[in-house]
Amino acid sequence: MAEFSPGLEGVVAAETAVSEVDGANGRLIYRGGYLIEDLVPVTSYEEAAYLLWNGELPNEQELEALREKMAGSRRLNKSGWGTLHAIDPSTDPMDVLRTVVSAQGASKTLTKPSLDEAIALTAVFPTIVGATYRRRQGKDPLEPRDDLGHAANLLWMLDGTEPSAERVHWVDTYLVMLADHGLNASTFAARVVSSTGSDLTSCVVGAIAALKGPAHGGATLAARNMLDKIGSAENAEAWLTDAHAKHERFYGFGHRVYRTYDPRAKILREMAKTAAPDLHRTAARTEEVALKILHDAHPERPNATNVDFWASVVLTGAGIPKELFTTVFATSRVAGWTAHVLESLSDLRIIRPASRWIGPAPGRKPLQLAKR
Amino acid sequence: MAEFSPGLEGVVAAETAVSEVDGANGRLIYRGGYLIEDLVPVTSYEEAAYLLWNGELPNEQELEALREKMAGSRRLNKSGWGTLHAIDPSTDPMDVLRTVVSAQGASKTLTKPSLDEAIALTAVFPTIVGATYRRRQGKDPLEPRDDLGHAANLLWMLDGTEPSAERVHWVDTYLVMLADHGLNASTFAARVVSSTGSDLTSCVVGAIAALKGPAHGGATLAARNMLDKIGSAENAEAWLTDAHAKHERFYGFGHRVYRTYDPRAKILREMAKTAAPDLHRTAARTEEVALKILHDAHPERPNATNVDFWASVVLTGAGIPKELFTTVFATSRVAGWTAHVLESLSDLRIIRPASRWIGPAPGRKPLQLAKR
Repeated sequence: MAEFSPGLEGVVAAETAVSEVDGANGRLIYRGGYLIEDLVPVTSYEEAAYLLWNGELPNEQELEALREKMAGSRRLNKSGWGTLHAIDPSTDPMDVLRTVVSAQGASKTLTKPSLDEAIALTAVFPTIVGATYRRRQGKDPLEPRDDLGHAANLLWMLDGTEPSAERVHWVDTYLVMLADHGLNASTFAARVVSSTGSDLTSCVVGAIAALKGPAHGGATLAARNMLDKIGSAENAEAWLTDAHAKHERFYGFGHRVYRTYDPRAKILREMAKTAAPDLHRTAARTEEVALKILHDAHPERPNATNVDFWASVVLTGAGIPKELFTTVFATSRVAGWTAHVLESLSDLRIIRPASRWIGPAPGRKPLQLAKR
Repeated sequence: MAEFSPGLEGVVAAETAVSEVDGANGRLIYRGGYLIEDLVPVTSYEEAAYLLWNGELPNEQELEALREKMAGSRRLNKSGWGTLHAIDPSTDPMDVLRTVVSAQGASKTLTKPSLDEAIALTAVFPTIVGATYRRRQGKDPLEPRDDLGHAANLLWMLDGTEPSAERVHWVDTYLVMLADHGLNASTFAARVVSSTGSDLTSCVVGAIAALKGPAHGGATLAARNMLDKIGSAENAEAWLTDAHAKHERFYGFGHRVYRTYDPRAKILREMAKTAAPDLHRTAARTEEVALKILHDAHPERPNATNVDFWASVVLTGAGIPKELFTTVFATSRVAGWTAHVLESLSDLRIIRPASRWIGPAPGRKPLQLAKR
C-alpha cells in the first residue's frame, strides 16, 4: 500500500485548468494561463469569475450579460429569507452563511451543477453577508442595487451609504485575488462532494464548512486579532518575542505550497499603505519581526508572509468589520469552488481514498451484550 | 511529483482506529477490532455509536447515560425549528437535513468538536427526518418520545403509530451496520472540513452534502428505483438485458473497496426475506441476472452486490418511504462522521492536496480590458 502523506501533502488529487499555485516561483496562475498580477490591474471580480467559469475573459456584451444575471439573482428566495430570519442574529457569520446558502440553494430534485446555478449562488453571497451584519447590529437587511457591481453591492448592503471608489477598488481587488487557489482545502471539499454526483449547493456548502477553520479562511481574522493584540509598531517586538516563547502560533505566515512570497500578499501589502496607513505601520513592523523570529527558530522553513496577513489590513481599510472577514473570503472563493465543480463534471469519479488501520487486530470477542 | 490516482484510489489519506474495510476478505471491522457480523446480533445503534466514539462497548450504566443524553437532545432548538419551517415542504429531504442540521448546530463562537456535541447532533437526526416527512404529507411534526430508543423514535416520528418490535429491529440493524465504513467519501469530506480547525456541525454538514450523491448515499434510493422499474422477478432478465444494452448503470453493484460480497449486504439479504418477502423475490432474481450480465461483460471486475442493493429492500420492508432513504443513511453514518472528526483532533493537519495543471502555459498576454 502507498505511503501515508499526512494532509495529502504532495499527493495529486485532481487535474485542473482552473488555477495553479506555482509555489516554487511564487506565482498564482488563473484559467487561461493568466498571472494574478496581470489580471488585478484590469479586471473586476465579475470578469475574474467569468474567466474561471468560462476559460476566457468576457467581451463587453458577455460582461454585461453576466452582470444582469447576477443582478437578477442577488435577492434571497423564500427559503433563504425565512432561514436567515430563523437564525439568532448573534450567530457566527460563517454559520449563518453556511445555513442560508444551504436554504437558498435547496431544491425539490437533484440537479446537475450548471453555470447558471454557479452565477446565482455567487451573486447572492454579498446579500447574505450584508444581511448577517445588519442583523447583528439590530438593523433590517438592505436591498441589493442593480446599478452597483459585486464589490460595491457588498459594501452598500453593510451600511447603506454610497461606497467610495477607493473602497470598492480595494474590495474588488481582494475579491479578484482570492477567487481561486488550486486545490486548497475548501475547493478540495467541494470536489469531494461533487465526486459523489451531489448538487452544486451541496458542494458550496461543504466548501463553506471547510473555509471556516482558522487554518484556512479563518486565518485572516486570526491575523487581524493578532495585530489588534500587538496594537502598535512599537509593541511588535516585545509581543511577538513573548508569544513565541509561549509557543503561540503567528497567524499570517507560512503556506503549504508557497516557498516564497505570496504574490497576492505582495499586492495587498502595497495597497495597505493607502487603505489602512496606521494598521499598515503596525503590520509592516510585525511582519519584519515575525519573519526574523520564525527564521531564527526554523532556518530550514520558508516562512514567507501569506495572503491572510495583508488581506486583514486591506479589508480593515476598506471598512469590512473583522467578524465578516471569513464570509468575505467565501464571497470571493465561491467563483473558484463552482468553477472546480463544473470542471470536475467532465470526468466524475468518487473521491474515496484508503485509510490505514491502527486499531486492534480484527475478530475481538466475546461480546457480553444481549440485544434487547 | 507523485502519480495522479483518480478518485484517490489506493491513496492513504488517514490513519484510523474507528473502522476498517477489509475489502479483500469482505470484512467490516468496527473500533476495538469487532467484526460487523459479531456486533449486529447483540448491539443497538446507541451501543454501536458509543463504541465508535469511545472505543469500548458501554456497560449498562454507560448505555443508560448515553440514552438520557440523546433523549435530552432530540428536540430542535429555536434556529433549527425556525429553519425547518422556513423551507418549502416539498424540498429534497437531504437538502432539508443539510440546512436544518446547519441551523441546529450554529453557534456564536467557534468551538472545538466534542463528544457531547457529537451525541447531540446524532440524537436530532431522526427528529429532522421525521419532521421532513410529516411536512411533505402536510402534517405537523411529532414530538420525540423519551421512552423509545433511536430506531424506534425514527419510526414513531414518521407516522405516530407504535412501531412493531420487528420494524424497530430491522431499522436498528441497518443503523448499526451503516454507522461507519472507513474513509468513504462523506467521512472523508468530514475529515477535510475538520482538518482546517472548523467546528463539528460544519464537518457533519459537509458530510451530508457528500452523502447526497447517487454514487454514495443516494445509491440506496437509486437501487430501489431500479427495482421499482423492474417490478417483478419475471421481468428482471428482460429489463436488465435491455438496460445493459442501453449502457445504463445497475445501481447496487460494485464497490471501490470490496472485492467480494459486502458483509452488510449478506446480513440484509437474509433479513429481507422476512422484512419484505415480495420485494425480496424481485431483488433476488435481479441480483442473479445483474451479476451474470456484469460478469459476462467484465469478467475481470469483482461485481459483488453492495449494501445499497439489499438495504433498499430492508428499509422498504421496515416502512421507510424511499424518498427518505438517504436521510436514514445519514441518520446512521453521523456516528461515524463524528467519531472520525473526534479522532482527527489528536493530530490536525490541513488536508490540502496538490493538483496537476493542465491549462495553457502561464504568462499569457496581452489583456485588452480596462479596469473601470
